[in-house]
Amino acid sequence: MTTVENGVNVQALLDARAALKDAPEAAQFTWRATSKWEKGVHSTIRVQQFHGLGAEQTHKSESVFDADHPAVFAAEDNGITPIEFLLVGLASCLTAGVASVAQNRGIQLRSVESTVEGNHDIRGILGDSDVRNGYNDIKVTFHIDADATKQEIEALVAQSQKRSAVFDALTNPTDVTVTVA
Amino acid sequence: MTTVENGVNVQALLDARAALKDAPEAAQFTWRATSKWEKGVHSTIRVQQFHGLGAEQTHKSESVFDADHPAVFAAEDNGITPIEFLLVGLASCLTAGVASVAQNRGIQLRSVESTVEGNHDIRGILGDSDVRNGYNDIKVTFHIDADATKQEIEALVAQSQKRSAVFDALTNPTDVTVTVA
Repeated sequence: MTTVENGVNVQALLDARAALKDAPEAAQFTWRATSKWEKGVHSTIRVQQFHGLGAEQTHKSESVFDADHPAVFAAEDNGITPIEFLLVGLASCLTAGVASVAQNRGIQLRSVESTVEGNHDIRGILGDSDVRNGYNDIKVTFHIDADATKQEIEALVAQSQKRSAVFDALTNPTDVTVTVA
Repeated sequence: MTTVENGVNVQALLDARAALKDAPEAAQFTWRATSKWEKGVHSTIRVQQFHGLGAEQTHKSESVFDADHPAVFAAEDNGITPIEFLLVGLASCLTAGVASVAQNRGIQLRSVESTVEGNHDIRGILGDSDVRNGYNDIKVTFHIDADATKQEIEALVAQSQKRSAVFDALTNPTDVTVTVA
């Protein structure tokens, strides 16, 4: 068997799956972000700490993001629009899944690119109650070059979708509670 | 009446709402992201172009994001985890809404901070079919300092939630189609 190297430590993930089966409390993660309003619809958001494996964890560095609205919304465009961050998460989650599944199946990847498009009728957020606020639908298109048949590549993408955290979060409802301290 | 300045051009948004009522096709936006696999579960995602008001539009600059998994997932932690981007979008969307609604209601904001926490049982993404892949639930806590009563501040947050694109996208299902070109 040819050695495949996509850079994913599949054995560690299989070991984690086995370990967490007997320690479900360690599998409870809490991801966190903190935001600070700057001015107008511009805010900065920071991500570094999270909880998992029964302890506080930290990313090796803090990530800071700017979110704003574009000039066509009469804003200053200091960063991408909040709803665009969902597309960033979806693209990266599905791509990580493709790499992991390919590694597990012994398929060498050469390149994986995707385009994500979210269709959005902005009359909802502007106050029209007959139009939903979020996306009407989202389309993801992958371009993948790998040592595999078209059918094998399609199966990689299908399996990635089946185990994608972000795909699930967007296609199924999640309870979100908002409170004022 | 005191002049309130939160930096949101509410009149432009009200004008847009009126204009788009008679031109629904101009209200159809398509937001886009493109991703490129780097190595392992690391990818880079770019956002700049979008479609809206019947034409191609562009952010004033391109935004580039790194997504990866942390060291506890046996990865290199070159960026935040895909599912964390959903929290970035949620925090910034609700914050933009608070600022817009406050401006419209004549409430001066001094500071708006929030913490967003997403609870996630990672056994799902590791392959346990009895556990969902996405978040179990998400909690958002706002700390707001404004020239307003506690009740008025709570009403700001409630109205923001009611018109938030990302809140809707996370609490209600969206059709996501994934294809291989």
